[in-house]
Amino acid sequence: MSLYGHYDSQNIFALILRGEAPSYKVYEDADVLAFLDVFPQSLGHILVIPKECQARNILDVEPAVLGTMMSAVQQLTRVVLDELKPDGVQIVQFNGAAAGQTVYHIHIHIIPRWDGEGLGVHAKDRADPAELETLQARLVERIHSNRLASPMLERC
Amino acid sequence: MSLYGHYDSQNIFALILRGEAPSYKVYEDADVLAFLDVFPQSLGHILVIPKECQARNILDVEPAVLGTMMSAVQQLTRVVLDELKPDGVQIVQFNGAAAGQTVYHIHIHIIPRWDGEGLGVHAKDRADPAELETLQARLVERIHSNRLASPMLERC
Repeated sequence: MSLYGHYDSQNIFALILRGEAPSYKVYEDADVLAFLDVFPQSLGHILVIPKECQARNILDVEPAVLGTMMSAVQQLTRVVLDELKPDGVQIVQFNGAAAGQTVYHIHIHIIPRWDGEGLGVHAKDRADPAELETLQARLVERIHSNRLASPMLERC
Repeated sequence: MSLYGHYDSQNIFALILRGEAPSYKVYEDADVLAFLDVFPQSLGHILVIPKECQARNILDVEPAVLGTMMSAVQQLTRVVLDELKPDGVQIVQFNGAAAGQTVYHIHIHIIPRWDGEGLGVHAKDRADPAELETLQARLVERIHSNRLASPMLERC
């Protein structure tokens, strides 16, 4: 049931996009918004969402929008690695409650991982606002110093 | 360390791409190959890899290749939903050993989920070959009947 259905324009990410709910934004362009997960599974847990696309999950979204989201995810992963120096990064996208989805506006998680540290339970513990603000400031500063939109040197 | 380094042309996915190791292929086009994970975390666990791109992880890959991979992931997710009827689907991409990466050729996991069923541990138990063959045949047949390359009806 949760895989299929109508888009609810009152979901929390829709409210954030309309400026009707707060968020700890770290990056925004014409296509995507990225902000801190307030129930982080690790330090630096970021969510990337499309701005104009009312898609609940991967079934509803144009491939081009998915590509745009992943491009932002890639660049923000570099930012997180530069600033927080995790040992690994998980990129995760959930579809349906059985897969762990809790908000029905498509989103991709960037979850830094450190050797020997487990993950927090998804959507369980709300982070301390002061810590989120500090983290937000660090990542925004790093994005600016990295010039997020500049060309990258991929191998292929 | 495992996040950064040189591409090892002897990794198992490189061997599969060169036809030097077997795999349970379910889909292939000019850009991507999709095959069953032989250490599945659930029934229908599929891996999608780029064919021409010697990238270890998300740091090494061109955004366009990521987009092509995600487009294939999207279409294969529909195939898995049609054929296996899971309650949800997780899309996962690991970077670095600390994040769970075990093969250093970039890949995206499609992991079907069912209500009330946990996940197997990643890269732990090898599936029964006969079961993998049966599953491969079902998915290949479904891909043909779905005409994978045909236009989809996304909302946005």
